[in-house]
Amino acid sequence: MDVVEFTPSFEQYAFTFGGVAPVMRIKPGIALRLWSDDAFCGALRSVTDLSSEKVDLRHVNPQTGPFHVEGAEPGDTLALHFVSMEPARDWGASAAIPFFGGMTSTDRTVTLQPPLPDTTWIYHLDSVARTVAFEARFSDHRIELPLEPMLGTVGVAPAGREVRSSLVPDRFGGNMDTPQMRAGTTCFLGVNVEGALFSIGDGHYRQGEGEACGTAVEGAMTTTLIVELLKGGAPAWPRLEDDTHWMTVGSSRPLEDSWRIGQAELIAWFVELYGLHAMDAYQLLSQISETPIANVVDANYSVVVKARKALLPPVTAYEGLHADLRRRAATLL
Amino acid sequence: MDVVEFTPSFEQYAFTFGGVAPVMRIKPGIALRLWSDDAFCGALRSVTDLSSEKVDLRHVNPQTGPFHVEGAEPGDTLALHFVSMEPARDWGASAAIPFFGGMTSTDRTVTLQPPLPDTTWIYHLDSVARTVAFEARFSDHRIELPLEPMLGTVGVAPAGREVRSSLVPDRFGGNMDTPQMRAGTTCFLGVNVEGALFSIGDGHYRQGEGEACGTAVEGAMTTTLIVELLKGGAPAWPRLEDDTHWMTVGSSRPLEDSWRIGQAELIAWFVELYGLHAMDAYQLLSQISETPIANVVDANYSVVVKARKALLPPVTAYEGLHADLRRRAATLL
Amino acid sequence: MDVVEFTPSFEQYAFTFGGVAPVMRIKPGIALRLWSDDAFCGALRSVTDLSSEKVDLRHVNPQTGPFHVEGAEPGDTLALHFVSMEPARDWGASAAIPFFGGMTSTDRTVTLQPPLPDTTWIYHLDSVARTVAFEARFSDHRIELPLEPMLGTVGVAPAGREVRSSLVPDRFGGNMDTPQMRAGTTCFLGVNVEGALFSIGDGHYRQGEGEACGTAVEGAMTTTLIVELLKGGAPAWPRLEDDTHWMTVGSSRPLEDSWRIGQAELIAWFVELYGLHAMDAYQLLSQISETPIANVVDANYSVVVKARKALLPPVTAYEGLHADLRRRAATLL
Amino acid sequence: MDVVEFTPSFEQYAFTFGGVAPVMRIKPGIALRLWSDDAFCGALRSVTDLSSEKVDLRHVNPQTGPFHVEGAEPGDTLALHFVSMEPARDWGASAAIPFFGGMTSTDRTVTLQPPLPDTTWIYHLDSVARTVAFEARFSDHRIELPLEPMLGTVGVAPAGREVRSSLVPDRFGGNMDTPQMRAGTTCFLGVNVEGALFSIGDGHYRQGEGEACGTAVEGAMTTTLIVELLKGGAPAWPRLEDDTHWMTVGSSRPLEDSWRIGQAELIAWFVELYGLHAMDAYQLLSQISETPIANVVDANYSVVVKARKALLPPVTAYEGLHADLRRRAATLL
Repeated sequence: MDVVEFTPSFEQYAFTFGGVAPVMRIKPGIALRLWSDDAFCGALRSVTDLSSEKVDLRHVNPQTGPFHVEGAEPGDTLALHFVSMEPARDWGASAAIPFFGGMTSTDRTVTLQPPLPDTTWIYHLDSVARTVAFEARFSDHRIELPLEPMLGTVGVAPAGREVRSSLVPDRFGGNMDTPQMRAGTTCFLGVNVEGALFSIGDGHYRQGEGEACGTAVEGAMTTTLIVELLKGGAPAWPRLEDDTHWMTVGSSRPLEDSWRIGQAELIAWFVELYGLHAMDAYQLLSQISETPIANVVDANYSVVVKARKALLPPVTAYEGLHADLRRRAATLL
Repeated sequence: MDVVEFTPSFEQYAFTFGGVAPVMRIKPGIALRLWSDDAFCGALRSVTDLSSEKVDLRHVNPQTGPFHVEGAEPGDTLALHFVSMEPARDWGASAAIPFFGGMTSTDRTVTLQPPLPDTTWIYHLDSVARTVAFEARFSDHRIELPLEPMLGTVGVAPAGREVRSSLVPDRFGGNMDTPQMRAGTTCFLGVNVEGALFSIGDGHYRQGEGEACGTAVEGAMTTTLIVELLKGGAPAWPRLEDDTHWMTVGSSRPLEDSWRIGQAELIAWFVELYGLHAMDAYQLLSQISETPIANVVDANYSVVVKARKALLPPVTAYEGLHADLRRRAATLL
Repeated sequence: MDVVEFTPSFEQYAFTFGGVAPVMRIKPGIALRLWSDDAFCGALRSVTDLSSEKVDLRHVNPQTGPFHVEGAEPGDTLALHFVSMEPARDWGASAAIPFFGGMTSTDRTVTLQPPLPDTTWIYHLDSVARTVAFEARFSDHRIELPLEPMLGTVGVAPAGREVRSSLVPDRFGGNMDTPQMRAGTTCFLGVNVEGALFSIGDGHYRQGEGEACGTAVEGAMTTTLIVELLKGGAPAWPRLEDDTHWMTVGSSRPLEDSWRIGQAELIAWFVELYGLHAMDAYQLLSQISETPIANVVDANYSVVVKARKALLPPVTAYEGLHADLRRRAATLL
Repeated sequence: MDVVEFTPSFEQYAFTFGGVAPVMRIKPGIALRLWSDDAFCGALRSVTDLSSEKVDLRHVNPQTGPFHVEGAEPGDTLALHFVSMEPARDWGASAAIPFFGGMTSTDRTVTLQPPLPDTTWIYHLDSVARTVAFEARFSDHRIELPLEPMLGTVGVAPAGREVRSSLVPDRFGGNMDTPQMRAGTTCFLGVNVEGALFSIGDGHYRQGEGEACGTAVEGAMTTTLIVELLKGGAPAWPRLEDDTHWMTVGSSRPLEDSWRIGQAELIAWFVELYGLHAMDAYQLLSQISETPIANVVDANYSVVVKARKALLPPVTAYEGLHADLRRRAATLL
């Protein structure tokens, strides 16, 4: 299986979903190996690089893409299977950006208080131990944490002629910031425009659920993925599948609405997968759902709603595509 | 180690935190074995028992207690260690109560729409396989699910002379509805009134995160717990510890505020445990938190914020009380 | 018409709705003239009195009452008609209490930011001009504002055996903080316990909608009111009537839920008053509602939903009680 | 003063802010007389026209524009003064669109309940009496209501390369749905792109605050406005001025965040206008704000925060532009 590699120049970075010409036309079934810059466009390289001084807010969360998938039409389903994600630098950065994050007032949850201290943390990567090192800034603590690469941002062009910032997740995916978006996961997105125009970015070397301070261990990433297209069947909101779980992602405000969206989408999926009545799917999921918060910081907040396959009768979604993609992925590793 | 057993009569059921005379005075260090009725006071025993007909809304979520802990004063910390939780009936019940639950309008998120169909599900328990059986009501599906007993409701009398319904979680604990409240967990609650006046109830034979439909597999429960008292050090919000995680629980509306509360409480705990500056604790937790939603249905919504001990340097909280309680618990099993 | 006067001693102040023995038993039809202390129990008397130093948070928002209304039973409707409200001191106080108010993080909308500067403003009353004087604290501005007395807090004992802080509004009324609670208004509250056990307090010499900083021009007040009882017909949430408007008050979180509650209650009232179908009442109110926010600071937020009588066919509520009370009130002035 | 008239063809309708080529280039100082279609593109003309059958959701809330204002650059302030708004048809329409509106579950506040009955109301206009007639659909009530024309939607192209649906309000203005957007009001908007690219639409013959059911008395409108440009000084969020009030509009979710935004913007304006410290402006506004909800239905909810000029010392904003525009407008009537 061939793999097409692509590394964007800075001029090719996309900062929106929609509104950008594709960097490449690809056929379904292709594998891509994509380099993506970190959310700061690499501007934070030491603890003395402050986000208020170094980060150009017009240039955050750069996307690699968009890719035009041949044959993709509105109403179709785009499947992106993540084969691998490997850090492309030996350090990652995190920052408490003034008035950005979950434990500060923001430009939406406004208060008159001063911002938290603008602080940058640099995480050095140990590629042998596969760890990143937290080093406290206000004392001498150092803690090695396992590397767990993921992509914060995966999405397609929105519906309704909209163009949306790469900072905001919504129906089209985007900046959902869930640790579930990792190697081994297949992401299903509804296609809104001809060619789907998907892009990826915002690599995280690891991230806690909620992305509390607004930034993960942000790092340039090399992502290998396989692109597939299913005609029709577009889900209303992003769906994820891995070997162990069925998952959906809702993104809105307040957070209970994100949860409602994810729960409704998983109920709808269970009606399809198991032939359950919606009331029975609602009941069953009430007893088995896992509901990690993904982010509480990206203007729209995201919740993942999950169901463990091992608890359920065996079924396949999308004609067994995920298992098939896992097999194909194995040939690439 | 002696164990004091207590099974309340219906007249002894408590339906509030605060406002009720204690059923018993106990000394710290005691073990209790408590029977608690299910959230419906046992009113739903077959699928033809509808909540709109059989459940008296003045008599829901009955508590076993309150217990007066000798020596407990405002500002102290009550520790409840759960040794075991065993189903006390061979069936559990769940219901889609009209205008109650996460995927319906409610008396607070009001709409003009009609309610969902009032439906009851009965789960039969297989005590050998340790499963409960989901049986669909609108088709013929049947799925055996693992028994995972937990308590929906654990709390103390509130501060400020308040008396609160056993349906609503808040600073005092109460109806948090987290699956983390299970055997092996120690729950730390701030004492607000002399004697603490804690109670427990709302046994669940299993529950998904979020408790989507508003009710778990509700069942009568026999709970064995050890009660300890620490002078001073009252946490602002409930803290949980088990062998693998540090945890806090925030309960409010909207759901992001519950998350904020839990995150702030865990940051505060990390400042205590590890000597980190709050900004560093905020950063570290941003990269390691787990944030399962507990409930989105109980008027106040609950979020659990967790940190895995294995990721962190070894420390103990409350002078190693949890480990000590685990040892004591082992003598009771 | 006789008027019974009552001024509580400090020991008689109530700080909750429910949970307090009545200060007096009264018969329906009676007029009362009640003195109430300000929300700070008079602790802020000059700009150098800081809330963090002088205000005992266990003793805020003192209520005058509760009054046991003879014959009042659960399900009945208590009507309180406000005849007059007169400042009982020649100054009022307002404060930016740390971590309290709408433009700061709070104990529920938690952030890690420092509090706003603890600041007290004293408003001197000109009883001839009927003004209170805003005097800036950080510059030399002085602005005379019209005196517009109102009560922040009016409520009855809650249902379900609950006892609630006088700081929090809910179904039982309480700290709704709406400028509509003024002389000339009749407030209808559902009775939850025998005797209704209503109380009033939290006088404001004036207040903007939203009560942005969390405190109005707080002042001791002399309130004359007439108490009436209607058998049955308890509204689900507080209803207000004055000469120009039908009004309801919803109190919850987030603020859209407060609005939904108020809107649903006014739709329900319109169905009663005009014989409209709920869908038609919904449509009609969509075109005529006025919806001032009352408070965004009291843990539960309040919204008033209003409809102007002049836009509507003439009808009376509760057998014309408001007009009758207006006539009776005129004899007291 | 000349007036340029413009009536778009259907092909010229804009359904987004941003992403559309201008229909005209104009110079600051110009007066425009613009025809705008109703929010349904005229699809609902009788009570038997149901929104689920007749309304194409890709074609709702059509805008007249955008207009390229010569010389407008990012950071400038666009002033739109509304001279007159006159109904352009003798009927308006309102509808309870399934799963759209404030008293129903929606695609964001999702429940499993069925929708409310899809219902259309037609309001006939009496141009002499200047009324529109509410006619109940489920009974025989008929109520004449005063004509009070306003525009639901006024906005400019968004920042950050975004293109946003004309259904959603945000920093750029858009579908704020406030009755304050009427003849006599000047609207100040920050310019984000060269030429500002403003448009207007969504005429309402009248609307209650909150726009409860999601639709006002929707009608085609002829709007006369004067366009002015101020170099620099872009407000963060829309500001309004009329003869009696200073106003700001915040739009977000949940509704308390909309209020916070509006309150912060008015505090910022007061700091500019009166030279007050932000803490004093916060205090003063706490005692004088009026805070009508504008909409609770447009994905982002809007709140208007107002201060009555008569309560305050005389000052002018933007060098007295509003008064000047009032004078110029008088020559056009």
